[in-house]
This record gives sequence, structure tokens and C-alpha cells, in this order.
Amino acid sequence: MPIRVGIYGASGYTGLELVRYLALHPDVALEVVTSRQYGRKRLRSMVSADLQQLVGNLRFIEPEPKAFEGLDAVFIAAPNGIAASVARTFVGMGIRVFDLSADFRLKDAALWQQWYGQEHPDPELLPDAVYGLAEFARNELPQAQLISVPGCYPTAVLLPLLPLLNAKLLDPSVTADCASGVSGAGRTADLANLYAEVTESYRAYKVSGHRHLPEIQQAIRLLTSLEAELVFVPHLVPMIRGMLSTIHVRSSSQVAPDRLLAKARNLIQQHYADSPLIQVASDGDELDTAQVRGTSMAQISVHQPHALPDRLILQCAIDNLGKGAAGQAVQCFNLA
Amino acid sequence: MPIRVGIYGASGYTGLELVRYLALHPDVALEVVTSRQYGRKRLRSMVSADLQQLVGNLRFIEPEPKAFEGLDAVFIAAPNGIAASVARTFVGMGIRVFDLSADFRLKDAALWQQWYGQEHPDPELLPDAVYGLAEFARNELPQAQLISVPGCYPTAVLLPLLPLLNAKLLDPSVTADCASGVSGAGRTADLANLYAEVTESYRAYKVSGHRHLPEIQQAIRLLTSLEAELVFVPHLVPMIRGMLSTIHVRSSSQVAPDRLLAKARNLIQQHYADSPLIQVASDGDELDTAQVRGTSMAQISVHQPHALPDRLILQCAIDNLGKGAAGQAVQCFNLA
Amino acid sequence: MPIRVGIYGASGYTGLELVRYLALHPDVALEVVTSRQYGRKRLRSMVSADLQQLVGNLRFIEPEPKAFEGLDAVFIAAPNGIAASVARTFVGMGIRVFDLSADFRLKDAALWQQWYGQEHPDPELLPDAVYGLAEFARNELPQAQLISVPGCYPTAVLLPLLPLLNAKLLDPSVTADCASGVSGAGRTADLANLYAEVTESYRAYKVSGHRHLPEIQQAIRLLTSLEAELVFVPHLVPMIRGMLSTIHVRSSSQVAPDRLLAKARNLIQQHYADSPLIQVASDGDELDTAQVRGTSMAQISVHQPHALPDRLILQCAIDNLGKGAAGQAVQCFNLA
Amino acid sequence: MPIRVGIYGASGYTGLELVRYLALHPDVALEVVTSRQYGRKRLRSMVSADLQQLVGNLRFIEPEPKAFEGLDAVFIAAPNGIAASVARTFVGMGIRVFDLSADFRLKDAALWQQWYGQEHPDPELLPDAVYGLAEFARNELPQAQLISVPGCYPTAVLLPLLPLLNAKLLDPSVTADCASGVSGAGRTADLANLYAEVTESYRAYKVSGHRHLPEIQQAIRLLTSLEAELVFVPHLVPMIRGMLSTIHVRSSSQVAPDRLLAKARNLIQQHYADSPLIQVASDGDELDTAQVRGTSMAQISVHQPHALPDRLILQCAIDNLGKGAAGQAVQCFNLA
Repeated sequence: MPIRVGIYGASGYTGLELVRYLALHPDVALEVVTSRQYGRKRLRSMVSADLQQLVGNLRFIEPEPKAFEGLDAVFIAAPNGIAASVARTFVGMGIRVFDLSADFRLKDAALWQQWYGQEHPDPELLPDAVYGLAEFARNELPQAQLISVPGCYPTAVLLPLLPLLNAKLLDPSVTADCASGVSGAGRTADLANLYAEVTESYRAYKVSGHRHLPEIQQAIRLLTSLEAELVFVPHLVPMIRGMLSTIHVRSSSQVAPDRLLAKARNLIQQHYADSPLIQVASDGDELDTAQVRGTSMAQISVHQPHALPDRLILQCAIDNLGKGAAGQAVQCFNLA
Repeated sequence: MPIRVGIYGASGYTGLELVRYLALHPDVALEVVTSRQYGRKRLRSMVSADLQQLVGNLRFIEPEPKAFEGLDAVFIAAPNGIAASVARTFVGMGIRVFDLSADFRLKDAALWQQWYGQEHPDPELLPDAVYGLAEFARNELPQAQLISVPGCYPTAVLLPLLPLLNAKLLDPSVTADCASGVSGAGRTADLANLYAEVTESYRAYKVSGHRHLPEIQQAIRLLTSLEAELVFVPHLVPMIRGMLSTIHVRSSSQVAPDRLLAKARNLIQQHYADSPLIQVASDGDELDTAQVRGTSMAQISVHQPHALPDRLILQCAIDNLGKGAAGQAVQCFNLA
Repeated sequence: MPIRVGIYGASGYTGLELVRYLALHPDVALEVVTSRQYGRKRLRSMVSADLQQLVGNLRFIEPEPKAFEGLDAVFIAAPNGIAASVARTFVGMGIRVFDLSADFRLKDAALWQQWYGQEHPDPELLPDAVYGLAEFARNELPQAQLISVPGCYPTAVLLPLLPLLNAKLLDPSVTADCASGVSGAGRTADLANLYAEVTESYRAYKVSGHRHLPEIQQAIRLLTSLEAELVFVPHLVPMIRGMLSTIHVRSSSQVAPDRLLAKARNLIQQHYADSPLIQVASDGDELDTAQVRGTSMAQISVHQPHALPDRLILQCAIDNLGKGAAGQAVQCFNLA
Repeated sequence: MPIRVGIYGASGYTGLELVRYLALHPDVALEVVTSRQYGRKRLRSMVSADLQQLVGNLRFIEPEPKAFEGLDAVFIAAPNGIAASVARTFVGMGIRVFDLSADFRLKDAALWQQWYGQEHPDPELLPDAVYGLAEFARNELPQAQLISVPGCYPTAVLLPLLPLLNAKLLDPSVTADCASGVSGAGRTADLANLYAEVTESYRAYKVSGHRHLPEIQQAIRLLTSLEAELVFVPHLVPMIRGMLSTIHVRSSSQVAPDRLLAKARNLIQQHYADSPLIQVASDGDELDTAQVRGTSMAQISVHQPHALPDRLILQCAIDNLGKGAAGQAVQCFNLA
């Protein structure tokens, strides 16, 4: 018997990537897809040729929780503020919720309002949400009714950092320059996302503060009990998919400088030894987002900057739509 | 009477960009272009349609200093190690040398050998070379016979940093994540530079030490008398041209946190008030390499990271072939 | 005394390209720019760094003909239907009009309505408009008050074709497959123009009939007195700028097959011998849109398909924003 | 028991795409991969993250037929001229050969020599090769020992054309303008394939005759008994993968003009009704190579040009590395 699932908000880049993962999933039947814009359009008209037979004649419907009656799980890929207004209904219907929006990522409703510019629709549900950074949530996921899938940047920053912070190897002062492909901006008709604006162009944005900053700080607090001093600057790369974090940290002086690099790499390798979606690069290998394009995998590398033996540079490459969104959501679904 | 110039090594990306600047220069006659690969091919076959009439029937010749006899200036855009083996000859012929390679950028021949992997061909000439970071070399350029044009990354890192270091506003501990378009890798037939390898891909490279690192450190030492602790990580962006530096620094505590941002921006604005090729972004404006594409200009912005009032984020956008190479060479030429 | 000009609709890709040409024009003062969307925004915030000083503090104003009082010329780069509703006013004010929209390209108001889906706002003005295919309008341009600048595809199809049709060398049965960069779709926030939709994608569009088809047919009729049987298929290329036409024609049998290729190339070379913006490729040379990127030039090549001696393949490369729009408008302005 | 296969020439774009198809194939064990350049390098270092576990510790070896002893099938993705020098050995060893090079595509050794510039290494084997245009070779494939996989352009031209030619619906005079992503040029370090040369550029090449022209003509002759008059012009698009053919044909007058379009579409739909890898677009739908990116599928559309009722425009979109190379090879393998 397949697991019956639906997607609430299936016509954006994340939603369509969810369609790809779920249509190809051997144990899943994708039965409901909603879209505010595409009326009763056929889903097959928006997927690549190889998926068209798999999605059959499924049509988009208007977003409406009751259409999901009887399903086992719903993936929400709607704009911020919407998931929080329907999650309680889904949970009440006994449907597990995998929310890919930011609605349940922050535990503090006031902080959420400060960064997202609107009142949180359902603050009482915040404590129930499990933060689905999959490799750090394996124990909670099987019981969770409401899973908040992490942001793409937090995933790329936290994966290499958490094992080292937990081992007390590093000062909790972190500078992370990250870069993302443009699908991260969503499938919205905005002049800034036009081909002629994006191609042959590279830029930083939200330099003085991006919404994923408090999310990263909260995750570090909850998963390592440390209070991080964090500088985080996102950049936009002229490519559809891919994300690379370049993270600068300093040793907490509990390890000899000449052993720092090996120690750090070992800690990360050991931590993810049983994590099939995490690969740790060999000494000297450098990451390229192309290697993880279209996958749910994360690659991590550890480097030491020239002539500064107490410093490390950590990098993590993911597909922002894969491990950074739909891939991690499906990973959580599999673990749940 | 036009100034008579030639280009030694004119068929790479930097060489061809020099052709563009010099062909359009109202006071210059471009009389000699050399190339090891293109025999007696006409230059016009390698330039864009609008330049073809301007370069007339000029043909590439084999690289040979004596062909430059009688010229006023030579621009060298050859691979590293070559300029240093011919510069003495050009200077002896009374021809001013503008070297765009790395041969005369480091003052220490041993350091040069360490980073460039070959013995320096003419260490005795090193002290004579003027480091042509144009805005900081105006006094030396008029007398200089041998000008070493800075690397692209050093230009993008030094321009925003030097005025603040000179004003003792910052700790000399600098973390610079920089990104470049792929023309920086040169016009060489290398698998790694193929379209299908580069597009839809983003990566860091030389994470543990890039040749421009000692150049930046030396420039800071010579131009500010400070010894910088520098982390510098270059990244590769799928675009032809453009460079952005994202530089993380900390206040040296000589200014109140709430005045740091304004103070820093003012210092930079004042320093470059008479520099027509430098633009300082207004408060809140963020840079995009597309704005300087095809130009000799540098744009600088200053930001403060969220909730860290003693920190600054400096950014500088240039065209790596413009202000980062040919444009700055021609700027030096104009000042000289 | 500079010629005083303005741009009616200056914030689209064509409008901004006009700004570039006019700001750099030695005899022109750009005094008025309008935009429906950008209120009183400064023009300098939308141009590249090297133009910012040239455009000074000029601000967009609301589109309103009376703001152009006293100017010598206006360039109209507004959506179809707008130029025709204001052109009469401008002409009445003694201002020469260079219209880059499609409003005055077709002489037949009923045909215009059929292809553009709206009633023509001023059919009585249609006969007065000079079709500004510059190389074929030199005699009319000096007296013209209203110049209709041709579409990009018509320019790329007509330039190689007209000299051969006029010489009766060809059957008037023409198949033209053309490809354009995406700036041709305009600076409009449309999902289909998003980076993530356009990059790594190639497609034909309007296969059964594009608006430039009747324009090409009319121009052939007026400039050669022939009635062409025309198949025209436009394609979209993932690049900002550039256009290439590939035109298949057949000899009209008035020339021996073994002389057809040389004869055709000679006719084109002779026709454009005094046209500085047209370059005819040498035997065997193939065109690349990169060579005309950012220029007002057109390159033409003539080929013979394998084993079919009575056929020719004509190609023409232009920049769709250059010779295909703003560049040709300024060329007409210079000739006028 | 899995079918044991190897790839002779696995490090080019086609070879690596074969790796992807074969590593994911449920019935196949990929046991041998050769490369002239990569010595004993691990295959996993050259594939994307999700395939690394699947290819395990397989290493490239030098190209040597005897290393394939005991395998069931070999895929050859080597430069032209190599497959023909080893195919006889493989066949003698009882190994089925799927050749993705051009070596066995033409039946006439003299014609092959004329287009490929070298003497054919094994002309006596030519008659034994089955031309693996999969949908037209289903009967021969099960017995074939040597399968010649068609070129990418021939696949995109023949698929829409053959059903209509076989039905005598069309004149055998065909004009095909085709466009390909740059992976078609292979993974070779050639200046013309560099990112900075290819991006923001579109061009035609081999306008006067491309090697796939005689292949298309031969296939039409063998599969329809017609002698086609063919104009074929390939173009290069700045994208990695994808191919679109735009084919102009004329009715042979056996069908009323107002029924031509419907008749043509019906014929194609019926012909491919049992072909799961062929999709025929609905009336009015236009193709986009993005829809078939990364797949083995072909999409076909049929259009009528404006006001020319006896003409048709056929289009076919494939992934040049998928249905145009590795995908079709594996399709043939599955049918064999």
C-alpha cells in the first residue's frame, strides 16, 4: 500500500522539485497538488518529459485543506505565513505536515514577526514543530506530526559546523559567506529575477541581515547549547541551482595547531559515518556545486588558511532545491 | 602626435581587452601586437565588429622586443615569467613598460619563487617596479619606467580596505571572500574552463592559499605599515567578467560603535573624492558586478552586520578585465 | 550647440540602450526621459557605472509629450499602441519622432490590427512614416518627421536578402529561421523570462506566425516590388543580446550554378560598399553573434549548401538591441 | 544475474552520460571503464554525488579490448576511427557492441572517408552494423551483434520526418535548421568551447556541409526508399544539453491543404503510439529543450506556417546526450 501524499503549493520551484522526488518515490502515491495560479491546469504540462507519465492526469486544484482528507502526509511549499494558518487543520485531520516554508523554523513568535514582517498566525503550534535538519533530528522525526524543514542557507552552514561546535573545537564566532543559485528566489515574476538581469552578474544581498541568520543562531543554540556570534552574507550566482557555504572559524585552543585540520575532518567524518547523504571530501579536494546538482546530498570539505594554523575554513555544497529544500523534506519524510 | 604603443602578448583575454582600450584611446596609436599562437593572423579577426576598422590591417607578430623599437610604451600581457625576462630590454630601449603579469608584483624574489614555482628571471629589477594600484601611485607613476599592474583580487580587496587601515580604524585581521568571472583563468584550452564544466556551477579554489595573498599582504605593509593577518578565499562564478570582494573586518575600538559605519563610509568617500573611477555606494545600496561590466570603474560599499556593531563588511565590485587588469593598466598609462 | 533629445519610455531594455547611445553621442544632449514605473527615480541608478556621470542628475518623469517642448527629437521606446497616440502631438510641436515600437511599421491599418490585436490609434499618420531600415532609407531620412525603426528580425532578414532580390538573383520564396537573445522579450516581469526558465533552454515560438512576418513581406514589396512567399520561425536563445538569421533561398536561374555564390557575395559587397555598419564575411567565414554584441553593426555571410548548387544560405548577425533597435534608431537620427 | 557491461571511452560527455544510465540500470553491472587520459583514476571522482556509491571503486583502465573478456556488451564512446578498429575483436569475443561514434553509421566506406577525413578501418564490417534509430530498428536489434547508434542531429531530424515521408505525404525536399547545446562538441580542451567563448553567443557552423548530412540522407533512403534533397544547418546554443530541429517541408499534394496539419499530426501520433520515449505535442504547443533535459525522450510538434497551407514545420526536441547519444544507446541495449 503506497503512502498517500499531497503538496500544498506545488507550482513553485520547490513545489515542482517535490513533485519530482515524490513522483519517483517507490512507496508514495501523489494524489493532490494545489496552486493558486494554475486553476485546473494539468500537472503534466509543468514537469519534464520523463515525469509526465508518472504524474498521469493529476490536475492542480485550489489550495484547500479538506481536499487532503484521507492522505497520510502533506508537504507545504507555500509563501511564508500560509503554512502556519493551515498546519493546525492538517494535524487535526491526522495528516503529517512537512512544511518547507519558514513558518515553524523560529521558536520565538516575536523574533519571527521581526524578521518576517507579519504576525505569526499560530504561535501556540511553534513548540510542537520538529526542526527537520535530518541528520540531527532522527530521534524526533518518527513521532513528529509537524516537521519544519530548514532553510537552504542554514542547512549549508550548520552541517559542517555543528559536529565541531559540539566537540568544543571552535570558538562560537562564525563568519559565513554563502552563495546560492537563483531558484532560491522562487518562481515569482520579479524584474530582479529576469534572465537579462541575472546572467553575467554576481552580487551580495541582505548584507546587513538575512532571515536565515536568526534561524542559524537558534539551531546552534538548541543543538550545541552555544551562543554564536554570527556574520552571514548571502550572494546570488547566475545559475539555477546550487549552494556553497564558505565558513571561517577559529580554534578554541583545545587542540594543537598542527593537528587541528585532521582533528576537524575526523570529527566530521565520524559524525556523518552513518549518513548516506553526507560526503566528506578528502584532504585537498575542493567542492563544486555541480557535483550535487539535482541530488539530495551534501558535500563537506575542511581547509586551513595559509599561515594561520588556528583557523579553519569549512565548506558545504548542496543543491538549494535538493538538500536545501525538497530533498531534505523527503529525507525527513523517509525517516518519519 | 599620438603616443606609440604595443602589446606584448595580445591574444589572451587581457591582451584583447587592452586592444579594446587602446584602439579607442584618442591619443594612442597601437602599432605592434604579438602572439605566440597566432602567427601572422590579422588582429581584426579576433576583435568585435566595431573595433575592426580601428585596428585596420595590423597583424600579430612573434614576440620579439626589437619589433617595439621606437615605441613609447609596451603593455605586457604574457604568462608569468616572461615579462621579467624582457622588461630590462624594453627599459633599455627607452620604452615604458606596463606589466600586467605577476612578475614584478612581489618585491621579494624568494617569496615570488615560492608562490610562482620558478626562479625569478630578473630579481635586480624588482625594486625599480612601481606597484600600479593607480589611486595609490599617482606620485610615482609619472617618473616610473616599469609599472607592475596589480592583480584583480588585490585591487578589489585593497581599494576599500586601505583608507580604513590608514586611518587606524580597523584591526589588521581581514577575512576576504572574493568571487571572479572565468575570464580570470585566461584564454587557455583547459578542460576546467569549458562551457559545460563552468556553467551552472560555483566553487571555491585555492582555498588554502592563492598567489594573490602575499601580494595583498605586501601592499598593506607598504601602503599602511601594518602587518595584516589575512584569510583570502577566491571563488569562481559562471560569468565571463566581474569580481566582487566581501571583506570582514573589526573596529580597532577607536570609534564608538554607533558611529563606525558612517565614519568608515566618510573616510572612503573622502579618500576617493578626486578619483573619477571609484564610486562609493549610498547607505544601504548593494553592489552588483553587472554595473561595472566592461568598465574601468570600481564600486565600493560599506555595511554593518546585524547585531555586531564593532564589525564592518566592505565590498568592492570591479570588472576583472577592466579595473582588475587592462583598465587599470591604461589608467596607469594615462597617469604616467 | 548640441541637438536636444528625449526618450519617451526609457526604462525598458531598448530605452536604456538608447540612453547608452545618446549619452555617449558627442553632438547630443539627453534632456528628458520618461517612465511609467519609475516615478522620479534618478536615471543614473539604472545605468552602468561608466555612464553615471554622463547622465548626471537626470530623473525619470511621467510620460507626457509637453515635457519635450523645445527639443529637437524624441525617441519612443514604449509598448505597441502608445507611440501612435502621441506621435501626432510631437510632430505638431516640430519635434522629429524616431519610433522604435511597431506602431508605424505596417502601412495597412487593418493588417496592423490583425497582428497587434488593437485598433490603430492614428491610421492617417501611417503614410507619413518613413521605414527606417537605414541603408535603404538614406534619401528619405533627411526630410522625414516620423521615422519608424524596423523590428529586429526584419532587419536581420532584409539586410542580406534585399540586394539579391533587387538584382533578380533569387526566387521570392524565402525560409528564414531566426534566433534572438531574450532581451527581445522586453524588461517585463513575466514568468517565461525568468533566469531559471530561460537558461539551459532553447525553443521556437510563434511558429505559425509572428508579428514581424507581415513587416518583412511589406518591406520586400516596397523595396523590391516582389511578393515574397515567406516562412519565418523565431527561436529564443539563452543569452541577453544577439540575433542570427539563417535564410534559405533558391536561384532564379539567371546565373550559372557555379557562379551563384560568388555573384551573390559580390552583389551584397557592392551594395554595402559605402555602409560602414555592414560587414560582409569572407568566403567560408561563419558568423557569431558575439562579434556584434554591444554594437550597431550587421555582419552578413553567404553560403552554398552541400550538393545543391542552385541554393544559397544567407546569414546576418546583429545585436537585437543595437542594429536591431537603439543602434539603428541612432543611425537614422544621424542620417536625418 | 545482471548483464555485465563495459564502456570503451568513458571519460567524455557521452561516456559519462552512459555511466549515469548504466549505473542506475536495475539489470546491469558496469564492470569496465576505459580512458586514455585518466590512467587509473577512480570513476567516482568524475560523477555526481548521487552516483558515487553506485560506481563504487571502479577505476579507469587503458583502452584494451581484452579487459572486456566475459562481458555481455560494450558501449563505445571513443573518437571517430577507433570503434571500427576494435569492433571486430569485440564481436569475435562474443560481446555485443553498441557504438556511439560515427564509425558504422554510413554504409559506404568511400563516403565515410570523404566526410571523416580518414580511411575506414574495417569496411567489411559496415554491412553487419544495424542502424540503431531505436523506433525503426526494433526487429533487427534482438539479433544484432553490432549496433551503430545514430548521431544526435539525425535522430532529431528523422523522428518527425520518417512517418510522413513513408506515408508519401511530403515532397522529399527538406530544409532542417537545427541547434545543439555545446556538450555535442565533446569534452575536449578546445579554445572554441571555453565558457567565455560560448556564453552569450549563438552561431551556425559547418553551414556548407556537416557530417550528419549524408547520414540523414542514407537513413531516409534506407527507411523510406526516397532520395531526399536536404539542406541541413547546425547551430550552437550556449547551453550544456539540448537539441531542437526546425524542419521545413512541403506537401506532396495528396492531401487537401486544410487537412494537411491534422493528417500529419495523426500519422506521427499513430506511428509512435507504442513508443514510450516519443511524445507528440498537442495542437499549438511549442517545444522547449528544457522539457527533455536529462531524459531519453523525444518530443515532436507539427505546425503550419502562416498563409502557406501546403507547408509544414516539424520540430523535435531531444537531449543531445540522452536520446541523441547515451539514452538511445541504452534504449537499443534494452531492445536487444
